[in-house]
Amino acid sequence: MKATFTLRDNSPGLTDTPGFRAAGVACDIREKGDPRRDLAMVVSTLPCSCAGVFTTHDLPAAPVRVCREILARGHAVHGFVANSGNANACTGAGGMDHAWEMVRLASNAAEVPQDTMLVCSTGRIGRAMPMSKVTQGIQLSTTKLGTDANNGTDAAWAILTSDTRPKTATVTFVVDGKTVTVAGMAKGAGMIQPNMATMLAFVTTDVAVSADVLKGILKKAVEPTFNALTVDGDMSTNDTVLVFANGASGVNVTQGTAVYDNFTTALTMVCENLAKKIVKDGEKVTKCIELTVKGARTTTDAERVARAVANSLLVKSSWFGNDPNWGRLADAAGYVGANIIEERLDIFYNTTSALIGGVAQDKLIPEWKAIVSQAEFSITLNLNLGESQFRLLTTDLTEGYVNYNKSE
Amino acid sequence: MKATFTLRDNSPGLTDTPGFRAAGVACDIREKGDPRRDLAMVVSTLPCSCAGVFTTHDLPAAPVRVCREILARGHAVHGFVANSGNANACTGAGGMDHAWEMVRLASNAAEVPQDTMLVCSTGRIGRAMPMSKVTQGIQLSTTKLGTDANNGTDAAWAILTSDTRPKTATVTFVVDGKTVTVAGMAKGAGMIQPNMATMLAFVTTDVAVSADVLKGILKKAVEPTFNALTVDGDMSTNDTVLVFANGASGVNVTQGTAVYDNFTTALTMVCENLAKKIVKDGEKVTKCIELTVKGARTTTDAERVARAVANSLLVKSSWFGNDPNWGRLADAAGYVGANIIEERLDIFYNTTSALIGGVAQDKLIPEWKAIVSQAEFSITLNLNLGESQFRLLTTDLTEGYVNYNKSE
Repeated sequence: MKATFTLRDNSPGLTDTPGFRAAGVACDIREKGDPRRDLAMVVSTLPCSCAGVFTTHDLPAAPVRVCREILARGHAVHGFVANSGNANACTGAGGMDHAWEMVRLASNAAEVPQDTMLVCSTGRIGRAMPMSKVTQGIQLSTTKLGTDANNGTDAAWAILTSDTRPKTATVTFVVDGKTVTVAGMAKGAGMIQPNMATMLAFVTTDVAVSADVLKGILKKAVEPTFNALTVDGDMSTNDTVLVFANGASGVNVTQGTAVYDNFTTALTMVCENLAKKIVKDGEKVTKCIELTVKGARTTTDAERVARAVANSLLVKSSWFGNDPNWGRLADAAGYVGANIIEERLDIFYNTTSALIGGVAQDKLIPEWKAIVSQAEFSITLNLNLGESQFRLLTTDLTEGYVNYNKSE
Repeated sequence: MKATFTLRDNSPGLTDTPGFRAAGVACDIREKGDPRRDLAMVVSTLPCSCAGVFTTHDLPAAPVRVCREILARGHAVHGFVANSGNANACTGAGGMDHAWEMVRLASNAAEVPQDTMLVCSTGRIGRAMPMSKVTQGIQLSTTKLGTDANNGTDAAWAILTSDTRPKTATVTFVVDGKTVTVAGMAKGAGMIQPNMATMLAFVTTDVAVSADVLKGILKKAVEPTFNALTVDGDMSTNDTVLVFANGASGVNVTQGTAVYDNFTTALTMVCENLAKKIVKDGEKVTKCIELTVKGARTTTDAERVARAVANSLLVKSSWFGNDPNWGRLADAAGYVGANIIEERLDIFYNTTSALIGGVAQDKLIPEWKAIVSQAEFSITLNLNLGESQFRLLTTDLTEGYVNYNKSE
């Protein structure tokens, strides 16, 4: 039976879930005297099952490698430490040592078994992690860990880089009188000060679930949400989504049950909320566009067309200029080898037709312009070649983006 | 035997080759009272063998389809008509009629057999070609056709869109006392006023060569030149390279001869010269970067890595800002699935090492900065995984580009 879901937008984040303590502190990892919070620690006293999805990058950052290794062991974990300001990527063997050291320091500080704290980093590539700062930050975190709203909020601030605001959401639903909580926080696809877009997202929940089942659910939740957004087309060395389940609600999630479906829905809702926040807070963007390619022969074709359109500089620039330039959309759609056919192509701004069967509906130009001038709108390309589709959240490209990223 | 080649840079272009007449006229194809030249016609009295390479876009513009059809018939041709200001792309059956009509009008006006004049267009997508303007332009061209330097120059101006200057080059070499000429003109990968980057290039030569042999040579010449440049990653519906050979020199080109090799060299030199001019005149760019990826397992891997780096918004923005941000290069190199290995990756700015075996050479930062601050420099990524390589010419991304393209 489908539950009733309650969404708490811009919630305190991870501490909404019973049993999770959080802290977010400032320890100057950027080594520039920057006063902002840059280290988050989140700890469950109860052992958690945990699942993660990670970047498919050839050069995964050291913390990504360490997380994969710990999760591969299959034992329970208790939480994580995450820093902003330094990605610990392209840092070689020394970087691996530092990531493992962060696991040890966090496990000791949280007074949990060794190697039960995961580690995530985001920030500049190719610089050694300043371990004395990190050590201070982890020590300081232990004195701040708590379950209050401000603890969750502090953690949500600490993982940010060029994001302008924290990104949190909580969804709850009730099973047999027991409330299940799924709480999340994320950092965005804006680029860190000199370097790198990194997407980090963390979810806490109080269901009881095996790591294997949790992994399957997480993959389902991530595909149409975090894996279906693009700001600038650059995948990061550090992208990570982690979900921790401590069982405190007493609700068990097993496959083939209504609870399984409801938990999947709740987790997807949290991921969707955070993904949209990431896109809307993309670096110097002014617009959020929901782009759907349908009628493709295969989902792969639909995704390739959608990503080509969403990442075309010409298309993104025209969105910034409120220019409903369907010719640029058609151009991008046609160069990825999906074998689209001009005479079948339909394009819509929201529900207003721009192109039907390859023929421009020019009398509707004023309506196109009005739609593209909004901060949020949708675009649909119907290839009319098959039954497959792909939906992607994306943004415009602004002069501000180039200016912001032209140097450190 | 290898010939001595003479390059005449910024030559008059196509009229350098004996037997070719050219004209470039203004006929207001943009329908905005714009006084600039927008229609070029080039005619050889002698019949020519001709070869073309065209966009691989799913939605080729009508003139591209018409050129392919004429060339497939295998008969000799006499030249071409080309216009800027309207791409005749995404214009359906009406657009095909218009393209064929341009072939007929040009063949009649040039007093050559029907269907022996090719047609090319560049400009806005999705608008009907203003045929009354085109008709006037073709008529006017016939009164202007000539072999003087200014005739070639007029034609070179007439095909431009957002280019800031014409692009021409001529290479000559001598065979048994006979001079062979290979003359070219091109328009650039800047975007036309509202819409589309289109690359058009035309070459005239006076060798005698079969269309099949010419096609093979053209493909060899295009691969490392026009097919190895990117400004913004957007392939156009209209990209076309055509070469016309009228035999006037009395020099025959057949496979397996020294002349074949020398002619291939000369044609490649012309293409290379024009390709570099296109990159350097890319829209609002400030830099031209020669990017080489070597040590790849396959050429495909090398090309994918090179294109990912060259088209990364982060990489391009950092070049604009004189920021030697090798972390962004490494990031882009790692996300295309070429299975690069951090510990083997070398990166060089010109010949100065930035990364050796994954280890940053930070003491050289001042040298990196000095190199990246220049208007032209090279970057080499050595993956150290194999023997394959790919070289690509590319540009930075500027705020000016976004501003220029944000609306029509």
